[in-house]
Amino acid sequence: MKYGARISYAGTAYSGWQRQACGVGVQQRVEESLESIFGHRIVVTAAGRTDAGVHARGQVISFDLPGEWHPERLLLAVNSYLPRDIRIMKAARMPEDFDARRSAHWREYRYLIWHGNALSPFFADRAWWDKFSWDMAEVRKACALYEGTHDFRAFCKTAECPADSVRTVLRASLRSRKNVTLFTVRGKSFLTNMVRIMIGNLQAVGRGKTDAGEIAALLRGGERRQSFVTAPPEGLYFWRAGYGDGYPRI
Amino acid sequence: MKYGARISYAGTAYSGWQRQACGVGVQQRVEESLESIFGHRIVVTAAGRTDAGVHARGQVISFDLPGEWHPERLLLAVNSYLPRDIRIMKAARMPEDFDARRSAHWREYRYLIWHGNALSPFFADRAWWDKFSWDMAEVRKACALYEGTHDFRAFCKTAECPADSVRTVLRASLRSRKNVTLFTVRGKSFLTNMVRIMIGNLQAVGRGKTDAGEIAALLRGGERRQSFVTAPPEGLYFWRAGYGDGYPRI
Repeated sequence: MKYGARISYAGTAYSGWQRQACGVGVQQRVEESLESIFGHRIVVTAAGRTDAGVHARGQVISFDLPGEWHPERLLLAVNSYLPRDIRIMKAARMPEDFDARRSAHWREYRYLIWHGNALSPFFADRAWWDKFSWDMAEVRKACALYEGTHDFRAFCKTAECPADSVRTVLRASLRSRKNVTLFTVRGKSFLTNMVRIMIGNLQAVGRGKTDAGEIAALLRGGERRQSFVTAPPEGLYFWRAGYGDGYPRI
Repeated sequence: MKYGARISYAGTAYSGWQRQACGVGVQQRVEESLESIFGHRIVVTAAGRTDAGVHARGQVISFDLPGEWHPERLLLAVNSYLPRDIRIMKAARMPEDFDARRSAHWREYRYLIWHGNALSPFFADRAWWDKFSWDMAEVRKACALYEGTHDFRAFCKTAECPADSVRTVLRASLRSRKNVTLFTVRGKSFLTNMVRIMIGNLQAVGRGKTDAGEIAALLRGGERRQSFVTAPPEGLYFWRAGYGDGYPRI
């Protein structure tokens, strides 16, 4: 029987979502917990892969169970085996055709930046620390350009760039308050490191190394070497995924 | 020359603010960092002591330095010696009569509660996890009763209760949203464990074990044994302290 769950994890201790030859992926911990309960391996599919050190607030997973379970009992059982930096926040019985990855209409990521002379202890490993404040008016202009369908070749890890690097960003927005800048981006799918490179370029704009006009040029099929740094993983959160009305909300 | 600083710390790894015979206090780490820079012990005074496991967002400290330092350079120097769960967030030259403890007009604490079946990994060690949701209407009524001058004997650790247990709460308020309840309390001074016992009693109200009327009775000089549990330290934050207009804002 098909189940779905929303899970949160702090990615600091993990090599990313996926099972790894080297290091531990979050997926492995979740599958081990299910195996402890059911006695055999249960493969888990996620809405989106996350890199080493990247967090998730609302990752969605799907898996098949050999029998029927009350969702709340399932949640408590799995959480009792998981380390506390990984938590099932909600579980639900799903239609048999539900697949956390293939059924997703969109994925939303958020990226958190902490500005200022000192990084708050409560944001250590949870945000990107940039000592400098940004020219937010120009950053907002650049951010708005990300929305829409563009060739994001300049925003993809070179070695993993597919032939077709055109992607559609459904939403790109910024909120800024005191020391914190929060970037939200939503899209059907993303290229490798795309969100982190989008942020690296916003930093370059914010610090005056480039401007919104240059970002517009990059979005017309620029190359990776013409754009700026890949922002570090610790500021990135897989926030949520959207599914059609045919599925219960997780 | 007198200096003041605002410091943040995650209290999880510490035995509290004060230097301890057993375990490490945050004060010790701060004094060690100053000693590494200046070559002799510099005693640091804090606006409020915090217990083991209690956090601070805006603890205020004062200390004397042998010479003049640019506040920003001082901040960077001290932070370079501190572990990253303790951070000086701001430093300032202060008038010679400034004393972080004696000059404070009020202290503000906040307490964070996480409700629900599973504790978010991002709130582990940072909030009190209560599986049950609370009857917030009744909790708000009880919370409002805390404001004003009362005999808080029923809200003080018995072994450390002074003869005069009358205290004035300047402000007590609650905010609640989704899984999170945030309690804010401000007062000139507090009894030992007072904020944590206030929260323990609100939980009892929220779960229907008692009601606002009983809290009103406790505030007319009840005994500790008549009131409820001491909430755990991990939800408590020393949020800030208020000083007169004669001092620069830290």
